[in-house]
Amino acid sequence: MSVLIVGSTALDSIKTPKAENPRLLGGSASHAAVAASFFAPVHLVGVVGDDFPKRYLHLYRRHGINLEGLQRAPGTTFHWAGEYEINMNQRRTLATELGVFETFTPALPNSHQELPYVLLANIAPALQLHVLNQMRRPKFIVADTMDLWLNIALKDLLRLLRRVDAFVLNDSEARQLAHEDNVIVAAKKIRKLGPKYVIVKKGEHGSILSSPAGYFLSPAYPLDRVVDPTGAGDSYVGGLIGYLASQKGPLEAHLRRAMIYGSVVASFCCEGFGLTRTTRVRRSDIDRRVKQLEKLVRF
Amino acid sequence: MSVLIVGSTALDSIKTPKAENPRLLGGSASHAAVAASFFAPVHLVGVVGDDFPKRYLHLYRRHGINLEGLQRAPGTTFHWAGEYEINMNQRRTLATELGVFETFTPALPNSHQELPYVLLANIAPALQLHVLNQMRRPKFIVADTMDLWLNIALKDLLRLLRRVDAFVLNDSEARQLAHEDNVIVAAKKIRKLGPKYVIVKKGEHGSILSSPAGYFLSPAYPLDRVVDPTGAGDSYVGGLIGYLASQKGPLEAHLRRAMIYGSVVASFCCEGFGLTRTTRVRRSDIDRRVKQLEKLVRF
Repeated sequence: MSVLIVGSTALDSIKTPKAENPRLLGGSASHAAVAASFFAPVHLVGVVGDDFPKRYLHLYRRHGINLEGLQRAPGTTFHWAGEYEINMNQRRTLATELGVFETFTPALPNSHQELPYVLLANIAPALQLHVLNQMRRPKFIVADTMDLWLNIALKDLLRLLRRVDAFVLNDSEARQLAHEDNVIVAAKKIRKLGPKYVIVKKGEHGSILSSPAGYFLSPAYPLDRVVDPTGAGDSYVGGLIGYLASQKGPLEAHLRRAMIYGSVVASFCCEGFGLTRTTRVRRSDIDRRVKQLEKLVRF
Repeated sequence: MSVLIVGSTALDSIKTPKAENPRLLGGSASHAAVAASFFAPVHLVGVVGDDFPKRYLHLYRRHGINLEGLQRAPGTTFHWAGEYEINMNQRRTLATELGVFETFTPALPNSHQELPYVLLANIAPALQLHVLNQMRRPKFIVADTMDLWLNIALKDLLRLLRRVDAFVLNDSEARQLAHEDNVIVAAKKIRKLGPKYVIVKKGEHGSILSSPAGYFLSPAYPLDRVVDPTGAGDSYVGGLIGYLASQKGPLEAHLRRAMIYGSVVASFCCEGFGLTRTTRVRRSDIDRRVKQLEKLVRF
């Protein structure tokens, strides 16, 4: 079944101790859409400016991503510049130029309003809500977020949480949102805010699902070398919802495996700048890492 | 089969934001010995002063721990006082009084020199080496350590590493020892220093085994509430070697499960001050958590 993905579509300039890469294709929706495209048909909703390189439109299309909902506006594309320190866990924003993103209002084409799987990738919660208001009766809604929205748009975020099936956030965000230092307890507390499923991402340490049926501890795929972690979290949720949309039967039965698939796509994302590694991956590469992970945790 | 455990036997005064507990039974060998005692007969080697409470000797004996190698010296028992911050990940040493530990030289009774399983719990590497020099032909040697020895006794530690089968350390120690920020790579590098198996402990994030056959990613048992993490790492290695000593056949086949058992005993350790929770645990409680962990990671 098909997936609707709404989020940011951006150009990322990324500096690491070893390299500098200007104007890569980035943004939460770009990473999530490419990640989901390995598993299911994807419909992207976002906005780009008139400086948006044609080659990135081709890249979306090569992944079979439907661009009917991608708005082209006069002005410049959202541009983010950042720098990573040696250990790749600390990053510093050098510049944020919103451009056409500043006035973005996601408007869904008619054909998109009945899509069964919805991923509200990281974007202002008000916009995530605005998308939900245009949907008919989606089968499953996943929302991602970032610390910024907890700090400046908490009210909107809490409103959103009452309307999503699964909510994904990282460990420090979970602690902040739940006012609880223990991540295991925080995840459970956040479920009381609305979502049936809460997934806490812990980067290289894997992720944790809290559901009415209990917890699931997902490993991260162990990487020898992290080139650029930008977009890893977006790839995770993209892979997760894409895999879910590709499966039949009760959703709960597939959620654990969907987290593993998300984690594997995220591992590829980290192995190259921007989307350069992810876009060279084949489905068989993903399946191979999933099998490896099965062996890595068996006891 | 039997396990020889050498390390510190101490009195710990532990302060947390919620409570203060003076002169609990502590030390790496105490925690490890109680942990191992759930699985195999344990022989403890250490030293205590004439202030060492009789009730702690009874505690050892209740766990069937052989005390022939526990020296009693005139003077005070090694005393450590520390304080934890709210999140339990930061701890501050308030006092370290070595007492009789200052001049401790582990001397093995004859009967101990042929024991098949050896745990060199956290103690100066020179003392760990001194113990090995007294052993005949142990079947399997595990060594634990701490950052202090990397800083002040690296040469001894490197000498030790050439003589042990498995080496256990935490993630920041692994990074420091391997001069490598990536823990996955660090574990592999440390194997080149001697040990066939390297286990990196990551606290609540589980542990990683690097072996000639590849990696194993072990989860930590998820805890709602951490009361006092002192001794968790010692409990981990104690549970690990105890379980190994209880199994037949090729050791490699049991190593993954041994890490899981270590992790579960460590989880109990964290649920009470000092050894108060661990000493109330039954083997069936441990087996139950191991089964739960199996379910928590299955996908």
